[in-house]
Amino acid sequence: MNSTANVFAALDLPQPYLLFIGDTTEAGYAKTAFGLRDWARDRCVGELACSPDAITLGLPKLTPAQARALGARSMVIGVANAGGRILDSWMPSLLEALEAGLDLVAGMHMRLADTPALTAAAERHGRRLIDVRTPPRGIPTATGRKRSGKRLLAVGTDCALGKKYTALAIARAFKQRGVNVDFRATGQTGIMIAGRGMPMDAVVSDFEAGAAEVLSPDAAPDHWDVIEGQGSLFHPSYAAVSLGLLHGSQPDVIVVCHEPGRTHVMGLPDFPLPSLEEAIDLNLRLGRRTNPAIRCGGVSLNTSQLSQAQARALFAAESKRLGVPVADPIRGGEEFERLLDHCLRID
Amino acid sequence: MNSTANVFAALDLPQPYLLFIGDTTEAGYAKTAFGLRDWARDRCVGELACSPDAITLGLPKLTPAQARALGARSMVIGVANAGGRILDSWMPSLLEALEAGLDLVAGMHMRLADTPALTAAAERHGRRLIDVRTPPRGIPTATGRKRSGKRLLAVGTDCALGKKYTALAIARAFKQRGVNVDFRATGQTGIMIAGRGMPMDAVVSDFEAGAAEVLSPDAAPDHWDVIEGQGSLFHPSYAAVSLGLLHGSQPDVIVVCHEPGRTHVMGLPDFPLPSLEEAIDLNLRLGRRTNPAIRCGGVSLNTSQLSQAQARALFAAESKRLGVPVADPIRGGEEFERLLDHCLRID
Repeated sequence: MNSTANVFAALDLPQPYLLFIGDTTEAGYAKTAFGLRDWARDRCVGELACSPDAITLGLPKLTPAQARALGARSMVIGVANAGGRILDSWMPSLLEALEAGLDLVAGMHMRLADTPALTAAAERHGRRLIDVRTPPRGIPTATGRKRSGKRLLAVGTDCALGKKYTALAIARAFKQRGVNVDFRATGQTGIMIAGRGMPMDAVVSDFEAGAAEVLSPDAAPDHWDVIEGQGSLFHPSYAAVSLGLLHGSQPDVIVVCHEPGRTHVMGLPDFPLPSLEEAIDLNLRLGRRTNPAIRCGGVSLNTSQLSQAQARALFAAESKRLGVPVADPIRGGEEFERLLDHCLRID
Repeated sequence: MNSTANVFAALDLPQPYLLFIGDTTEAGYAKTAFGLRDWARDRCVGELACSPDAITLGLPKLTPAQARALGARSMVIGVANAGGRILDSWMPSLLEALEAGLDLVAGMHMRLADTPALTAAAERHGRRLIDVRTPPRGIPTATGRKRSGKRLLAVGTDCALGKKYTALAIARAFKQRGVNVDFRATGQTGIMIAGRGMPMDAVVSDFEAGAAEVLSPDAAPDHWDVIEGQGSLFHPSYAAVSLGLLHGSQPDVIVVCHEPGRTHVMGLPDFPLPSLEEAIDLNLRLGRRTNPAIRCGGVSLNTSQLSQAQARALFAAESKRLGVPVADPIRGGEEFERLLDHCLRID
């Protein structure tokens, strides 16, 4: 248990946050900031832009010093750009935050710690630069040992179709039902929301399943870890991440995420997506290796492009066809309640 | 193609070698040295021990200076110990090698470059310290794009049951038949034998399939890459490595390796090994994602514990049961020739 504790110490993030949105004018580039606003609102004191044209999250607009006075402990870079770079135009705000006593947290390709002006300022002010893409040290290889407690893993037919939001929504709903639950984050936005986690795609392959074991340690028999999924077993680039996460998570329950109408792997038009039946079957077959009792708790559809009537008709048809509850956790409703029931096995 | 060239440049090893066996008294700890002797004899000028009690490979015993005079360009640490450490007792020999003009090559957990006395000496003498466990920089994510040329991947029911030797033996036999072939190494010993390769288990998960794509680039239509396998899709610790390698290799042919009598994952007695049918089926099912034409070329059995008569009876029985050629590549014989025929599709 010691190594588990050490590993987590390395990725515990200082909260609450000030959210930095730079000079971003497109909401699509501020997904992290919006995710934090939507899922960790109580741990975000406000927002800071470095241009009057930037989008807004609708949070209080604060200087780093004002945020610090309101209790903020770090400023999160909540925006991205095509190259994953730290822009020169951001530097005055980043330096001001360090000076005001805030740590910096980022999950971009370019690491904060590789920016000499920031490392110098951080050292001068005794502040930390935390790159959530950098895995903690000392991750062990997986043992396959069955851990106590219950686990649910969101898996998917592809990347970027709602695995994180599905896991967050299920964890929130479990909590509302009084279930003892933790959301376990595996990607940078999820880690920022949870304030801890494991950047699974940045872990060395030999330790991938081990990292997933560390992420959801032994727990009380009635405790649930709801684990954010990554990639897809069907993704020609990232399936290694998905399989290591599946094996190491030892899920009792999977929820399979899909976006109706998406027919091919995003960015790889030569690769058709699997059917939901195939996705359920392959995840169960491979997951059985470390948890023979694995089962499918339901299907989560991202129906943001559909009307309420269309979505509900789709839930009914798909549920009948697949034999498991089908819902959109963001939409909620009785279909989602049935999915939760089935995951918790009270249907 | 530029990035491929760059990646490979980083892991091209200076040959021929002087093989360093330290003070090892057990052959089991000198697997790398024996592997190099057996599979790269023409690129090994001799051996060096630092204790009179050490085992011998039966090669000429040379000082670093003598080896250098005979053309050696590097000294390979061909032994391991439980901790994967560089022992103090080895240091005089390692320093002498650098002084004599040899680079050092190692594949241990402890990196040569993390040993200050060695980095200082290497700098002084203008020599390189090459850790074959350290992946090259700039590995891209996989694209899934179908590459030209033919590929064979050795897969297995477990770790350490003959995948490397199977791939080496098939590559050697292909060559003897006049096939245009390259052995593609994925682990440290294989990389030392080939003089190049990709340490798949040390690659960050997100780039695992991409690393396999880089390892076996576009080639002539009749060219074969025979790729060393890693781990097993059924291994609760290392399946991520195996799946990334399978997807990125896009094999036309798999050869499934197994050791008769091994019933459980080595070191994990709670995990029974899959049947050969299961291993063939799952590798084909997952491999089909990036190469729909994937097929099983045969089964390679490690029969070192059996008599010739026992082994041949087993080959016949298993071949009949599974419907593919079954052989022990180290034993050779007509069964192995049939396996080669089937891989090359001339049966």
